[in-house]
Amino acid sequence: MKLLYEGKAKKIYETDNPNEVICEFKDSLTAFNGEKADKEEGKGALNCAITTIIFEALQKEGIPTHLIKQIDETKQLVKKVEIIPIEVVVRNIAAGSLSRRLGLKEGKKLPFTIVEFYYKNDDLNDPLINDDHAMILNLVEKREELDKLREYGLKINDFLVKFFDKIGLILVDFKVEFGKDKDGNIILADEITPDSCRLWDKKTGKKMDKDLFRFDLGDIKEAYTEILNRLKG
Amino acid sequence: MKLLYEGKAKKIYETDNPNEVICEFKDSLTAFNGEKADKEEGKGALNCAITTIIFEALQKEGIPTHLIKQIDETKQLVKKVEIIPIEVVVRNIAAGSLSRRLGLKEGKKLPFTIVEFYYKNDDLNDPLINDDHAMILNLVEKREELDKLREYGLKINDFLVKFFDKIGLILVDFKVEFGKDKDGNIILADEITPDSCRLWDKKTGKKMDKDLFRFDLGDIKEAYTEILNRLKG
Repeated sequence: MKLLYEGKAKKIYETDNPNEVICEFKDSLTAFNGEKADKEEGKGALNCAITTIIFEALQKEGIPTHLIKQIDETKQLVKKVEIIPIEVVVRNIAAGSLSRRLGLKEGKKLPFTIVEFYYKNDDLNDPLINDDHAMILNLVEKREELDKLREYGLKINDFLVKFFDKIGLILVDFKVEFGKDKDGNIILADEITPDSCRLWDKKTGKKMDKDLFRFDLGDIKEAYTEILNRLKG
Repeated sequence: MKLLYEGKAKKIYETDNPNEVICEFKDSLTAFNGEKADKEEGKGALNCAITTIIFEALQKEGIPTHLIKQIDETKQLVKKVEIIPIEVVVRNIAAGSLSRRLGLKEGKKLPFTIVEFYYKNDDLNDPLINDDHAMILNLVEKREELDKLREYGLKINDFLVKFFDKIGLILVDFKVEFGKDKDGNIILADEITPDSCRLWDKKTGKKMDKDLFRFDLGDIKEAYTEILNRLKG
């Protein structure tokens, strides 16, 4: 298989179909824009399984996604998209960079769900942007596309908050990426995993996401396995 | 006179009228959130004269401002307002933090004028915010007020670009602050001076604003005096 792209957490391979690619989930773990890096055997398979379950559920909810099907433990067949270089972050509870930037106590429930856009650019450390910035950087063609990203972000959040609540998890925040398919439709791409979400256990308050790795708080594999088991059970 | 407030560049004094205060322009110069600080005798008077001319011109253009009148070399009588803690930044050309954050070359003309909001909070280093942040921080009461700030920012820019062009200056960007008067109307407050604008000489390209102080590029007083003379002449 010809490698088309390798990112921090995934590899993308060509297929015979020009509109489809294979996405392989790597075992690598990175944080703080790659400054902290490690490897955890089996993490790729866990994330592949978790994001597949979530994308299939979202697809049923009417959110278009790039997922076609999971093809082995660490790989998905997905629609080829042109990624929109905007990280769409949706937040229900203050944590991470929001707490640091705005001086909000971690754990404080926000009065309403907020959406943030970050310019996906490692050299610039993925800076926060507003709509004007997105337009002058040509990250989208029209302002309406930014509204669409916000709308999808909130719709995904509405679904996922309940989805995770049912398995005893609080969805604090998450990051999603979107792409344009061959017809120019905006569809959900990338992944939704404990690498891209903050998930806290409802009963114990324990973190069950990449913050365990970021701040050396505990065993990633144990937490991700627990999430997968709850999703399956 | 009873001092009500002292900021980095101004002092605010009480008057007999509860709806009016006196604003005194200090000679102090600060940059990088106060990390760099100095004093330049006469700068307060220059800025007081410059902002008075500009606010009077804006007032004639239909932009409501807090200015009542200049009362001596360094002081203005102004309407008492409750300052909205948002720095409204309007940019025509890439420079300063925009260049650094988004990797845009200083001097690059933007495809359209952009507006940014910064949360006025020294402890947090005045972070860039989006509309959702402004709302969860209760910086305004309604989203429409944010639209109003953007609208005023662009209207002020439209006027000032031509105003400065007539005296041979390019308006690169500027920062304005707004307040609410006793009736709850949003009006322009604070100042518009070479401390709060980037102004480049049209012929020579020379900076004639606080960047001279920020980066030790030249004599602030000479530049500000030149601006005042052009405004008067």
